[in-house]
Amino acid sequence: MVFEFLYGHWAVMESLRAGRRKFEKLLITESTEEKGIVAEIITTANERGVPIKRVPRRIIDDAANGANHQNVALRTSVYPYAALEEVLAVAETRGEKPFVVLLDLLKDPQNVGSLMRVGEAVGIHGVFIQERRGVEITPSVVNASSGAVEHLKVVQVVNLAQTMNTLKEHDVWMVGLDAGPNVPPIDKTDLNMGIGLVLGSEGEGMRRLVRDTCDLVLCLPMRGSVASLNVATAGAIALYSAWQARGWQGWAHASGAGGTGGAGSAGGKK
Amino acid sequence: MVFEFLYGHWAVMESLRAGRRKFEKLLITESTEEKGIVAEIITTANERGVPIKRVPRRIIDDAANGANHQNVALRTSVYPYAALEEVLAVAETRGEKPFVVLLDLLKDPQNVGSLMRVGEAVGIHGVFIQERRGVEITPSVVNASSGAVEHLKVVQVVNLAQTMNTLKEHDVWMVGLDAGPNVPPIDKTDLNMGIGLVLGSEGEGMRRLVRDTCDLVLCLPMRGSVASLNVATAGAIALYSAWQARGWQGWAHASGAGGTGGAGSAGGKK
Repeated sequence: MVFEFLYGHWAVMESLRAGRRKFEKLLITESTEEKGIVAEIITTANERGVPIKRVPRRIIDDAANGANHQNVALRTSVYPYAALEEVLAVAETRGEKPFVVLLDLLKDPQNVGSLMRVGEAVGIHGVFIQERRGVEITPSVVNASSGAVEHLKVVQVVNLAQTMNTLKEHDVWMVGLDAGPNVPPIDKTDLNMGIGLVLGSEGEGMRRLVRDTCDLVLCLPMRGSVASLNVATAGAIALYSAWQARGWQGWAHASGAGGTGGAGSAGGKK
Repeated sequence: MVFEFLYGHWAVMESLRAGRRKFEKLLITESTEEKGIVAEIITTANERGVPIKRVPRRIIDDAANGANHQNVALRTSVYPYAALEEVLAVAETRGEKPFVVLLDLLKDPQNVGSLMRVGEAVGIHGVFIQERRGVEITPSVVNASSGAVEHLKVVQVVNLAQTMNTLKEHDVWMVGLDAGPNVPPIDKTDLNMGIGLVLGSEGEGMRRLVRDTCDLVLCLPMRGSVASLNVATAGAIALYSAWQARGWQGWAHASGAGGTGGAGSAGGKK
């Protein structure tokens, strides 16, 4: 079994909470106090029977390849990818029209992580990424997602356009996000349907075949002198548009339930 | 006059295009070819009469304090802050209801830059930030905004709550973005009015007095296991909601004009 080190408070915390990987050990720097989120991590690790080791800081520096690890590293099996059917099963179990994201060769772990975090917050059922040439779910993506990806179903596919066609057969509309000028704005279509939001890579946008396989292509209006958005920002706005069209389905306060699901803070984690 | 180094393709390019600072010199690493965006930067620097120097890479490494400078650095006067009246004048000149952002002690340059970039894309008239304890418009913020902040009016204020009261006197509604559970979602209010979107800091949210000074407080719904958004992401979504409520005012394609303003690509810059 191949192992890797997750690092960062929320990556480690959410991975332990989700409990989908094999956990080998939790490393914490010697000087770190057991309080706040670190105390929560230790409690959860104990509940899961994960050995905890206090180590010198440089050990964790190495494990995290110099990234900002916040004094914790979790040695785990690699990311557990899902199958397409599992994603559709999530939608079915929840009694919701499919709501998925497809990433066409995105490369920046920060962007991908950020999209996963928003996706998880609006309740998408899964994410499809292209094998090999696109990003993989590395520890850096997990960290950038604040651990959200540990709760998501991510499917690695060999051919994204082919996957789009398969999803279309399951009544999932492929909605590409693209630039103008001959593309209608995102609020001109009722997105309350089974949708797969397709996002192109940083710099190049969607590949030709992927774009042509979309059922519709929408844009985010822009004005100003610069008029460009980061793909993670654009995707976040599109995801909220789509979820709003669904009437905030699954939001604790929309359904009248008390719950904790909808109480997240806009400023809670950085 | 105090000078500093801007770095990164778009920070340098947009600063030159905006032309609001004094430019001392443009540094480019010796080995960089004159093509693409670098060629555009050189052309614009020449038009503005800015001396260009080819230098060894380590000189720019130093100028950028080790940040990813993409082989260019521009020595300029510091960021030119605006006054509150100038922001209101932008709204008046455009014949639009005021649309501004107020940042309560945000600290992360990446978040602030990212918000400025979205703000510029939706046509806000200005941004208010707290002097001293909040972030300043450093080269790192300019870079994170992809240069958008060079086109924006940013006002540093001594007391944010007091500024909010002044803006209220000018018929600008103060709309705070906050977490639930007893806060209505953002689509429940018609945001087609003069508004100031108030965003709290990473981690702590709005300070008590700032929150109490808001006319209304709205939330972004969230579901899922993690249920938290980065403040820059949450702000971006709220800004698009507000702009949508204004009917995409100023978007080239909304008004039927051809123009270039609305043609920005979701994937154009990283």
